Amino acid sequence: MGYVAAIDVGGTTMKGGLVARDGTIRHAERRPTPRAEGPARVVAAISAFVADLARPRDGVRPQAVGLAVPGLVTPTHAVFSAAFGWRDVPAEAFAGDVDLPVALGHDVRSAGEAELAYGGGEDDVLYLPIGTGIAGAVVLSGALYGGAGGWAGQIGHIPVRPGGAACGCGQRGCLAAYASGGAVAARFGAPGAEEVVRALLDGDARAAAVWDDAVDALALALATYTLVLDPAAVVIGGGVAQAGETLLAPLRTRLGARLGERPAPAVRASSLGAVAGLMGAGLLGWRAAPAT
Amino acid sequence: MGYVAAIDVGGTTMKGGLVARDGTIRHAERRPTPRAEGPARVVAAISAFVADLARPRDGVRPQAVGLAVPGLVTPTHAVFSAAFGWRDVPAEAFAGDVDLPVALGHDVRSAGEAELAYGGGEDDVLYLPIGTGIAGAVVLSGALYGGAGGWAGQIGHIPVRPGGAACGCGQRGCLAAYASGGAVAARFGAPGAEEVVRALLDGDARAAAVWDDAVDALALALATYTLVLDPAAVVIGGGVAQAGETLLAPLRTRLGARLGERPAPAVRASSLGAVAGLMGAGLLGWRAAPAT
Repeated sequence: MGYVAAIDVGGTTMKGGLVARDGTIRHAERRPTPRAEGPARVVAAISAFVADLARPRDGVRPQAVGLAVPGLVTPTHAVFSAAFGWRDVPAEAFAGDVDLPVALGHDVRSAGEAELAYGGGEDDVLYLPIGTGIAGAVVLSGALYGGAGGWAGQIGHIPVRPGGAACGCGQRGCLAAYASGGAVAARFGAPGAEEVVRALLDGDARAAAVWDDAVDALALALATYTLVLDPAAVVIGGGVAQAGETLLAPLRTRLGARLGERPAPAVRASSLGAVAGLMGAGLLGWRAAPAT
Repeated sequence: MGYVAAIDVGGTTMKGGLVARDGTIRHAERRPTPRAEGPARVVAAISAFVADLARPRDGVRPQAVGLAVPGLVTPTHAVFSAAFGWRDVPAEAFAGDVDLPVALGHDVRSAGEAELAYGGGEDDVLYLPIGTGIAGAVVLSGALYGGAGGWAGQIGHIPVRPGGAACGCGQRGCLAAYASGGAVAARFGAPGAEEVVRALLDGDARAAAVWDDAVDALALALATYTLVLDPAAVVIGGGVAQAGETLLAPLRTRLGARLGERPAPAVRASSLGAVAGLMGAGLLGWRAAPAT
């Protein structure tokens, strides 16, 4: 059975693997993203990772390479990434010496495509990964929707508390400033959101207050999304979704209250979990692979 | 040239007319909607209006009837209307003795379809009529989008000021509670929004404050819409759009400020103006007309 090499390039970790056409992951490994070392070092780390994944295993080589990266991306160029300081990096730069077709894609949208292809379910759904930041993949009538200019899905910057907490984007009161993993951790004063969840479950009142703010901000943003687009479901992914019902149960209650008499969409955790991005990168690779 | 009979049924006024396939309005008249007299009287007033429009003119009868009504609507039934107290009213009930095909449609969506068909322009646009209330027609990739259950486009109930002013929907802080014509009039203490605009232009500070709140709430809601769906344009219709640049100029400035570095969609008044609903009802009629 054939496979493609796929890497989901995150802000702190790269997840790479070999992905079959049906989404099966044959081999997976994680490496740190050397973000602090500058734009070129991140490109070099990716191309080294590609070279390792491109080696034959059991006599079989991958047919193509799919890379899911953050920022503004076309299939052939990483046009702009604030996270990595990239500007117009061509897809070939990520392949180094490896002579395979390479396709780039947006990390969150690719994960959304994987949810759509492999997660099963609704045609009208918001896929919302909550990790260090918050982004969204807007799936309408069974297809990802990019908007007039490709900028749709910036759910993390919905102004839920106008004039509120400062956000990295330069605005105030954005959803991400309250409910991203980064914001939850920073507001509590912990390295990550997991520590906040642990403190919350241990009965820490300050953790409960931070979590409450996060859930409330999310409920507001999802109420707005529902009023505008009436989705059948909201599928939450990313690291923060690992909080499970600690997040989802109060979120459903608050969202229902915000919507009054109209029914709320189903709110659930991604069934693909943390590998949605890798599976999405696999889909990118399969799109670039030569027809067989 | 053939035509259909069309009525745009508003909360206070019905606009009826004869509409050609290219959107040309051959005859138009307004009648009051007897909303206070109960559900059946509104149906009777519509069927009397239909009967008058269905009479032959210059030997030509309309080929079908299109009715744009508020609430939850299918082509064959007015399923529910809070405004008129309707529940499951069949399309035929609106036609009385007139033996023509009758099609129903949602008022705001039909107006949005008219904007799309006759107003010219973008494939990805929010059509936002601001009258007594605020609704929205979400046009994505050149087609109206209804969502998973047909409830998309409730822009008027985006929570722009969580916990703020009470809205007729039972929630607080909805866009419509600040920026609808009804809210602007009520907050200033005038019969209609026109009086507020007049007072504003006369230098009335209280009118300016009410207007400022309305523009700010709209800018917030449109920033959210833009972040989620990245439209090419926002087209504002309804009575409040008649304020023209008094509304649009500060709205563009505030929306731009809310979006920071990313470009804002074009914001303009509907080119169809107050007849968009009638033209939309005409489109409904043409869809029901026998093929010729």
